[in-house]
Amino acid sequence: MNFKMIFHILGKILYITAILMLLPLIVAIVYGEKEMYLPFIAPILLFLAIGVPLEIFKPKNTLIFAKEGLMCVSLGWVVTSIIGALPFYFSGYIPSFLDSLFETVSGFTTTGASILENVEILPYSLLFWRSFTHWIGGMGVLVFLLAVIPKTDMSMMHLLRAEAPGPVVGKLVAKMRLSARILYGIYILLTLFLIIFLVAGKMPFFDSVVTSFATAGTGGFAIKNSSIAYYNSAYVEIVISIFMILFGVNFNIYYMLILRNFKRAYKNEELKWYLGIIVITTIAVMINIYSMYSNVSEALRLSFFQVSSIITTTGFTSENFDLWPMFSKTAILFLMVIGASAGSTGGGIKVSRVIILFKSIRNSIKKTISPRSITSITLSGEIIDSKTEKSVLDYFVLYIIIAVSSIMLLSLGKHDGITNISAVLACLNNIGPGLRVAGPLGNYSSFTALSKITLIINMLIGRLEIYPIIALMSPITWKRR
Amino acid sequence: MNFKMIFHILGKILYITAILMLLPLIVAIVYGEKEMYLPFIAPILLFLAIGVPLEIFKPKNTLIFAKEGLMCVSLGWVVTSIIGALPFYFSGYIPSFLDSLFETVSGFTTTGASILENVEILPYSLLFWRSFTHWIGGMGVLVFLLAVIPKTDMSMMHLLRAEAPGPVVGKLVAKMRLSARILYGIYILLTLFLIIFLVAGKMPFFDSVVTSFATAGTGGFAIKNSSIAYYNSAYVEIVISIFMILFGVNFNIYYMLILRNFKRAYKNEELKWYLGIIVITTIAVMINIYSMYSNVSEALRLSFFQVSSIITTTGFTSENFDLWPMFSKTAILFLMVIGASAGSTGGGIKVSRVIILFKSIRNSIKKTISPRSITSITLSGEIIDSKTEKSVLDYFVLYIIIAVSSIMLLSLGKHDGITNISAVLACLNNIGPGLRVAGPLGNYSSFTALSKITLIINMLIGRLEIYPIIALMSPITWKRR
Repeated sequence: MNFKMIFHILGKILYITAILMLLPLIVAIVYGEKEMYLPFIAPILLFLAIGVPLEIFKPKNTLIFAKEGLMCVSLGWVVTSIIGALPFYFSGYIPSFLDSLFETVSGFTTTGASILENVEILPYSLLFWRSFTHWIGGMGVLVFLLAVIPKTDMSMMHLLRAEAPGPVVGKLVAKMRLSARILYGIYILLTLFLIIFLVAGKMPFFDSVVTSFATAGTGGFAIKNSSIAYYNSAYVEIVISIFMILFGVNFNIYYMLILRNFKRAYKNEELKWYLGIIVITTIAVMINIYSMYSNVSEALRLSFFQVSSIITTTGFTSENFDLWPMFSKTAILFLMVIGASAGSTGGGIKVSRVIILFKSIRNSIKKTISPRSITSITLSGEIIDSKTEKSVLDYFVLYIIIAVSSIMLLSLGKHDGITNISAVLACLNNIGPGLRVAGPLGNYSSFTALSKITLIINMLIGRLEIYPIIALMSPITWKRR
Repeated sequence: MNFKMIFHILGKILYITAILMLLPLIVAIVYGEKEMYLPFIAPILLFLAIGVPLEIFKPKNTLIFAKEGLMCVSLGWVVTSIIGALPFYFSGYIPSFLDSLFETVSGFTTTGASILENVEILPYSLLFWRSFTHWIGGMGVLVFLLAVIPKTDMSMMHLLRAEAPGPVVGKLVAKMRLSARILYGIYILLTLFLIIFLVAGKMPFFDSVVTSFATAGTGGFAIKNSSIAYYNSAYVEIVISIFMILFGVNFNIYYMLILRNFKRAYKNEELKWYLGIIVITTIAVMINIYSMYSNVSEALRLSFFQVSSIITTTGFTSENFDLWPMFSKTAILFLMVIGASAGSTGGGIKVSRVIILFKSIRNSIKKTISPRSITSITLSGEIIDSKTEKSVLDYFVLYIIIAVSSIMLLSLGKHDGITNISAVLACLNNIGPGLRVAGPLGNYSSFTALSKITLIINMLIGRLEIYPIIALMSPITWKRR
């Protein structure tokens, strides 16, 4: 393994994160939160103290392979989360380091699960940092790295592949750096649009900015205890619903639209399924909750917001869905697993994987009934080779094994079954709120240390799509040949 | 599709079931239960009235393929269950036909889920029939058919393959008929042994016979409301625990032992995993429940019984595990999914499938970390080809999709999430008792009609390993080419 190059890239990651952390420091200065200077300056210096020496020695052999790609991503995310947790810890607003780490991993992985019982007492700069981690984690710090570093060779592809979500990583253009820049360009633009829309809806400017960060990354950290319900505005809810859905779309589609390649964008099968699932579930949940509300439009709006929030794995809430009937709650749990589109900022298994799973199963049924029938699977008109199909099946099985093991570990804690199951699904799929104790009005503070560690690993596994974290923990990686 | 041959075989199935139903009628005569004569004679006549005309016309073309095999099995099981439900319905002990069907499907599929609130008021003959359905369903009515009909050609293999559980159907010997006879021979012998052991333990003779039926089929219908706990005998519990485990072993292994092929039996990987899972889970649960009981031996005995009962998918209970701590309950839920060995009378996904899944996943992790590594999967020293591997993955995904859809359907009913999840797992894996409302002291009577129908389909899907039931309901089967 090319350790020198891994450390070199890790150095770059820490370096960049230090620069990004200047922003909340600026917020602290603007709002005059003097007590927050040190809690930000200390980790910035720590980032630099570790990052600069690592970065400075560029190895001769810059070639990296899949293994190195996985290691860069997993190490990068773990180290960034540990240091990124320090502002919460140093400021004293989260007295336990484990809790600070939980909150930070939840931020970077765009989960939005919080251990804070009262988020409204936090200073502006800390709220900014908390939401900004969502924005950084949404598109990915390594993709950002690829966008800003001057020289990249093709072996950098392994970095993109290890961090970007979805079964098939589609480069936008031949050049890695340009691809990463286009992605970030679209990301920044959409975020700016949302800020403008929210400010236009009379949401305070600071709130608009941080809410946009959390929406863009499909994170879900709110700066009010009652999440988006606080604003009590149908306009705000609908705008956020639509933007959550937009950020859950494969970003390649936006690039196609920019290139005016409408035909290819229209042919995208994942998009159709994604929108289809949203429409069908919204209607089903609306019918199910209708009797609880005064009118159809309110039931529709609440259903639409919660469904959009969950399938995109954002996790904002405009209503306590834990009080909804069993069918709606069960539907929400399963939406968590499906997740958003590949190549979006959302989590979950991803709609394209679900499509491939369904088509693979349909084929296997056909083959069992008529063993001689030959059929191949297509996605958006392109044939999915058996290797990709197998990798999607493997991914799903691995996902289930991880979920099951995590639920077992949580069952050693003190909470009930539904809390445990929903907490694992909400963290593994990077949603945030689950049901019961982990529900929209609850939080994760009362979980045992073992449960919190399990959920932290779940969040990282979910965001990085399993393999980087498995690689970090697997003896196979560390075996010398 | 060769409909004529399907109907011919269906005729044979009904014919044989009619003969088998003479046994409970004899029980009714022996115990002088005159009111039970008609409820048994009527369905026997119905079986014959449909079966004999169907059977009598033997088609010229006796060749059948996979599709016909699936159809024979699914139609056979559905029709047998419908007519087999009539004694419950006609006798008036189960006033609803849907409930009677639920109880009968639960019997034939060796599930053991009951809608009866008080089973002890049933007459002997009906209790006998109820438990006897477990015994018939355990090894399978089509396997029985293959054992008794004089002439079989190789195309009958499709029948065996469609009814026998496991990822690879191993014929014992080249001749189908001999294979089926050996299987039933071992089955009858083990059942007789168990009856002798139970009678020796001072269990009443009738109780010993029906309890042995329910153990042999890994069914779990008890004739006492408190199941095996009623007998309050450590001897009975331990004997049944051991026999449940024996009936959960692949019957091929007994055949190898009979042939004194100890080496091959010893090499069987599934057996080692199966026993290993039992040992580890028994100890883990024992530690978890220890504080609830007075001493280690009681905790160990109760843990051993419940673990054996659940992994073999029998469903007998000697303790209300719904009162156990969360870890034990969660472990029990996941044991349900694993199930017993392939080629046994037990249900669930089957240990060999779980092994293949784990090995496939380990391989996929290896390949992700080092893309050029080449590895193949073996089971008991034999290479599993990629087709079998893929079919196991497909099976698992299909299984999850069915479980998820069923839980969604149950969520439209009136029970809580844990009840719904456990009910689906307990029926889909042919266990019987779940948690909460469906728990060891509960029953399925209070579920809605939609939920009961869903669970009936789940039981059939579980026992017949998905494909026959899917084939019956799939438009692909009915499409004319």
